[in-house]
Amino acid sequence: MSTLRIPVDVPSPTQDCEKLKNAFQGLGTDEKAIIRILGRRNANQRKKIRETYQQLFNKSLIDCISSELSGDFRKVVILWTYDPAERDARLANEALKSWRKTINQLQIIVEIACASSPHHLVAVRQAYCSLFDCSLEEDIISNVSQPVQKILVSLVGSYRYDKQVVDSTIAKMEAAKLHNAIGAKKLDDYEFVQVISTRNISQLRETFNCYKDDYGKNIDQDIMACGKGILESIMKVVVWCINSPEKHFAEVIRSAIVGLGTDEDSLNRAIVSRAEIDMTKIIEEYFIANKSSLDNAVIGDTSGDYKDFLLTLLGEDV
Amino acid sequence: MSTLRIPVDVPSPTQDCEKLKNAFQGLGTDEKAIIRILGRRNANQRKKIRETYQQLFNKSLIDCISSELSGDFRKVVILWTYDPAERDARLANEALKSWRKTINQLQIIVEIACASSPHHLVAVRQAYCSLFDCSLEEDIISNVSQPVQKILVSLVGSYRYDKQVVDSTIAKMEAAKLHNAIGAKKLDDYEFVQVISTRNISQLRETFNCYKDDYGKNIDQDIMACGKGILESIMKVVVWCINSPEKHFAEVIRSAIVGLGTDEDSLNRAIVSRAEIDMTKIIEEYFIANKSSLDNAVIGDTSGDYKDFLLTLLGEDV
Repeated sequence: MSTLRIPVDVPSPTQDCEKLKNAFQGLGTDEKAIIRILGRRNANQRKKIRETYQQLFNKSLIDCISSELSGDFRKVVILWTYDPAERDARLANEALKSWRKTINQLQIIVEIACASSPHHLVAVRQAYCSLFDCSLEEDIISNVSQPVQKILVSLVGSYRYDKQVVDSTIAKMEAAKLHNAIGAKKLDDYEFVQVISTRNISQLRETFNCYKDDYGKNIDQDIMACGKGILESIMKVVVWCINSPEKHFAEVIRSAIVGLGTDEDSLNRAIVSRAEIDMTKIIEEYFIANKSSLDNAVIGDTSGDYKDFLLTLLGEDV
Repeated sequence: MSTLRIPVDVPSPTQDCEKLKNAFQGLGTDEKAIIRILGRRNANQRKKIRETYQQLFNKSLIDCISSELSGDFRKVVILWTYDPAERDARLANEALKSWRKTINQLQIIVEIACASSPHHLVAVRQAYCSLFDCSLEEDIISNVSQPVQKILVSLVGSYRYDKQVVDSTIAKMEAAKLHNAIGAKKLDDYEFVQVISTRNISQLRETFNCYKDDYGKNIDQDIMACGKGILESIMKVVVWCINSPEKHFAEVIRSAIVGLGTDEDSLNRAIVSRAEIDMTKIIEEYFIANKSSLDNAVIGDTSGDYKDFLLTLLGEDV
């Protein structure tokens, strides 16, 4: 469930745009107004606001945000204002073009492929082509080395059946296939990759349950016991994104916040991309895992308008 | 270009539906009216006719066609009346579930993946999930043996960049990769499959041109010199569907018609699926390859309303 708090009487896109225009104008920017408006509109409403803004003022709303705001606050508001498919295409591109391609960068591609609807995944691939003049797969191939490359290409090529249909016999059989591959430390085994990139989510959850029942351990534990490389980390994220995206994103937020300094990019991505999907459950999972509230963690690690915007997306009154 | 001849003044969907209803009613069916109406409407118009028919008479147009027509005429009219994505999903499913899975059956999947727009391919995958409660990939995996299986799975997973952008350096480099794989008779080589299933169509055409320039022969000739199995045949169809879908479909029609008897399923598929896309060019390619007209070939091998319907789709007055 979404944590977004949309007002009962939503102003028209024209009213919203005029208020935003006023917020940008004058000597100081009215950040509170921007938070109040954009932070409380869903993806469809934001789309209409973007379109209306362009029509009314012949300017891109994103450009105005970009020139009027600054720092992390600017980053997160822009991310939130993009169309979700364009946002994810841009995040994937940044990850692929970044100099360091650790699990922190590459997991964004797994999230898009395994923790989104097939419809959203296709929309991201389409946006990627439009924005970057090549396919997402081509950029994965030219920027990611093997064996992770072929896993990511298979995952983004999926168009999973999206109903809850489970065949227990297949689950048991495929749990055995996964177990064999893991036993041989071959996480990039053809059949392993095929199973995780073609089966529907419910089916895979049943397969992971069978794995635990038949072999005693959770599949992600056995994967991590194979080694400490990027391959193992990627496969663990795959399993988590399929099995429990809420736990995955709770963990992304935890590791963005833990220790000295904050990884704002990961924090933004997790909150912005899940606020309208399953943030209520992520907050629960965060509390279970960390015995403290996600809101407090955000309050402790961020400040000012940036903090207020994140808390607004988390459903708080600021 | 399409061979479809849509009247200048298209009747409203309601008028079309009422005429169709009349054509179905009474003692004899008015086949000519059905040909005149459905054979001269494009995919969007047919969609509106299907929807309007359901609303007006609370019956499915496809069901009415199915109960009122018979034989090959019924088959082709139904195929034509389906939404194109649903039609291709059904054709792919029939191919995968057929007892014999020769090139004749499996090439339909290559056509969908390599001779259609990325948008259409995704629409087919979506329709496949809705109709058959699993993904197209899952059915390929459970019905096609290796190594063709992995090639088809990769091809249907593609979402190619659909602009005409070509990098000659990459083309030359990838022509060498393809040449190496063919030289080693490894047509299912990972890099070979990756190139043909991720690069955009213009880029691949340039790669095939480089292949000819650098190695003296057309790539499809070299592929066919690797052997006479299903793998070689599939890869040849892949190259043809990418390089010149018109030649491929001209050849599908030729081989459906040549010799004793007619392969109506292939004939229907080629004409129905390409009438609105590139049938003008297919007719040209057919003439170049066979020194006779496609229309005459259809006239020679079919009869009655079936013949008239095919000729209508080919742009003839019947």
